[in-house]
Amino acid sequence: MVIRIGIVGVGKIARDQHIPVLDASPDFDLVTAASRHGRIEHGVTHTTIEEMLAAEDIDAVSLCQPPQVRFEAARVAIAAGKHVFLEKPPGATLTEVELLRDQAREKGVTLFASWHSRYAAGVETARAWLADKSLHSVHIEWKEDVRHWHPGQAWIWEAGGMGVFDPGINALSIATAILPGFFLTEGLLEIPANRASPIAADLHFTDAAGTPIRAEFDWRQTGPQTWDIKVETDAGTLLLSKGGSELRIDGVEQTLPPEAEYRGLYDRFAALIAAGESDVDVAPLRHVADAYLRAERRQVEAFED
Amino acid sequence: MVIRIGIVGVGKIARDQHIPVLDASPDFDLVTAASRHGRIEHGVTHTTIEEMLAAEDIDAVSLCQPPQVRFEAARVAIAAGKHVFLEKPPGATLTEVELLRDQAREKGVTLFASWHSRYAAGVETARAWLADKSLHSVHIEWKEDVRHWHPGQAWIWEAGGMGVFDPGINALSIATAILPGFFLTEGLLEIPANRASPIAADLHFTDAAGTPIRAEFDWRQTGPQTWDIKVETDAGTLLLSKGGSELRIDGVEQTLPPEAEYRGLYDRFAALIAAGESDVDVAPLRHVADAYLRAERRQVEAFED
Repeated sequence: MVIRIGIVGVGKIARDQHIPVLDASPDFDLVTAASRHGRIEHGVTHTTIEEMLAAEDIDAVSLCQPPQVRFEAARVAIAAGKHVFLEKPPGATLTEVELLRDQAREKGVTLFASWHSRYAAGVETARAWLADKSLHSVHIEWKEDVRHWHPGQAWIWEAGGMGVFDPGINALSIATAILPGFFLTEGLLEIPANRASPIAADLHFTDAAGTPIRAEFDWRQTGPQTWDIKVETDAGTLLLSKGGSELRIDGVEQTLPPEAEYRGLYDRFAALIAAGESDVDVAPLRHVADAYLRAERRQVEAFED
Repeated sequence: MVIRIGIVGVGKIARDQHIPVLDASPDFDLVTAASRHGRIEHGVTHTTIEEMLAAEDIDAVSLCQPPQVRFEAARVAIAAGKHVFLEKPPGATLTEVELLRDQAREKGVTLFASWHSRYAAGVETARAWLADKSLHSVHIEWKEDVRHWHPGQAWIWEAGGMGVFDPGINALSIATAILPGFFLTEGLLEIPANRASPIAADLHFTDAAGTPIRAEFDWRQTGPQTWDIKVETDAGTLLLSKGGSELRIDGVEQTLPPEAEYRGLYDRFAALIAAGESDVDVAPLRHVADAYLRAERRQVEAFED
């Protein structure tokens, strides 16, 4: 049975990813939206999610807004008995995500808190290859130019906006999918003098076996951009690069399935709805909260867009 | 069957609380300890937990050290097949607590991450009274003089030392036990210019019903100390004061069972061991992490002991 779905927030990510994938999916029928400024061609675009839920006969809602307003929308949609797909990060706090999970369980609907980077082409192959290896060390480097990727986006620098963890959480979502459980032992957050959120983070983790795991996130990288996870093992070196889309083992490029992150996410959402299950993994956001809780902070040069 | 137990960390809290309670408990037999500086009279005090675990025939371990070193001790004790009692907070990060929970499940031992304030005399009576009331508002005030309670304790001000959340987490452990689920919407942390951790926090929470819940933690209070939770309801005002040990409803003092926080904790630990269960509720620590993640920070006057 086709799932009738409405999207909330018709911005860049909705137009670039959600709408084309929903148009191509056999599982979903995109019939409506709620957005203050955007519009879709598939049906009525309402001004608010409450209007959309009152007016439309839909089974599911996909939330594509910024994280600050997502919790209330999710709460309202679950209360209306809709299945909910949440973009990463699933909330501005860990506790609100726990409450949504409880609410979805009580209402008997599916809540899917998605981590799109986990559906990058190389992630599953990397996970399967690492599963029977002994790890010697892990080095995560996620270094990009914030001026290029988030020009003038003030909210990302505000308290709760997460700063460099906005991309960094993608690295953590992959690392938590392909490595055994690990936890922060120490770290350093670099905060521009005129901002509330970090522009860089240097995090040291370990796992039960004592493997050194280091993550470096930096938003000040110009020139080539780096989104790499390198794992040294007893059976060679795995390098997952370009955000999970390329995989090399001992320098040899691996053949991967075609890139289809958002298609993978919606396939998973449809499968969860069919099975009557939820998937709410807070591990990546928990690592970010742990870093805020535990790491040292250093004030660095002011950042101007 | 009496549970043979060893304690790790023979400091003030062990001497004031754990040892007298274990001496009086019919469930436990305190037979050994590990401590670098302290000593017990009940048996050999070893220098390290590893030495204690290798030398002694014990069923359970109680960890009474500062949180920074507790994770490794818990991991070693669980790996040795011992039941483990952890003082609050259960870890320096949320993720390490999750990993301990997983490890205890795999080893088939009991892990009890304790919140001693939940065993204060008035907490259970407050919870039961609130259970069928509609809440109008909640005001938590936890204000004390850090110079009196933590003189010269530098570690408490370091990154990961949690500052005013060290007492504040006690308030949160009671609030999460007596109120429906709530989450942070905004907050302010005040950080002394010469310290890494907050000296005060002003936190705004709400719940699914929209109840305003405010928590004020402050370590700069001289004169009378305040550890109050006030709940306005449709059926009157509940005031839980002195850290949960006194309870008034509409100003009328309620009769409570005698104060026995640590006895309550060890009774619970024994019951969990008998039932083959664990109790690892991270909700209070998750609220602290959420505050670090989400709240604004303001630099305030330097603090000198």
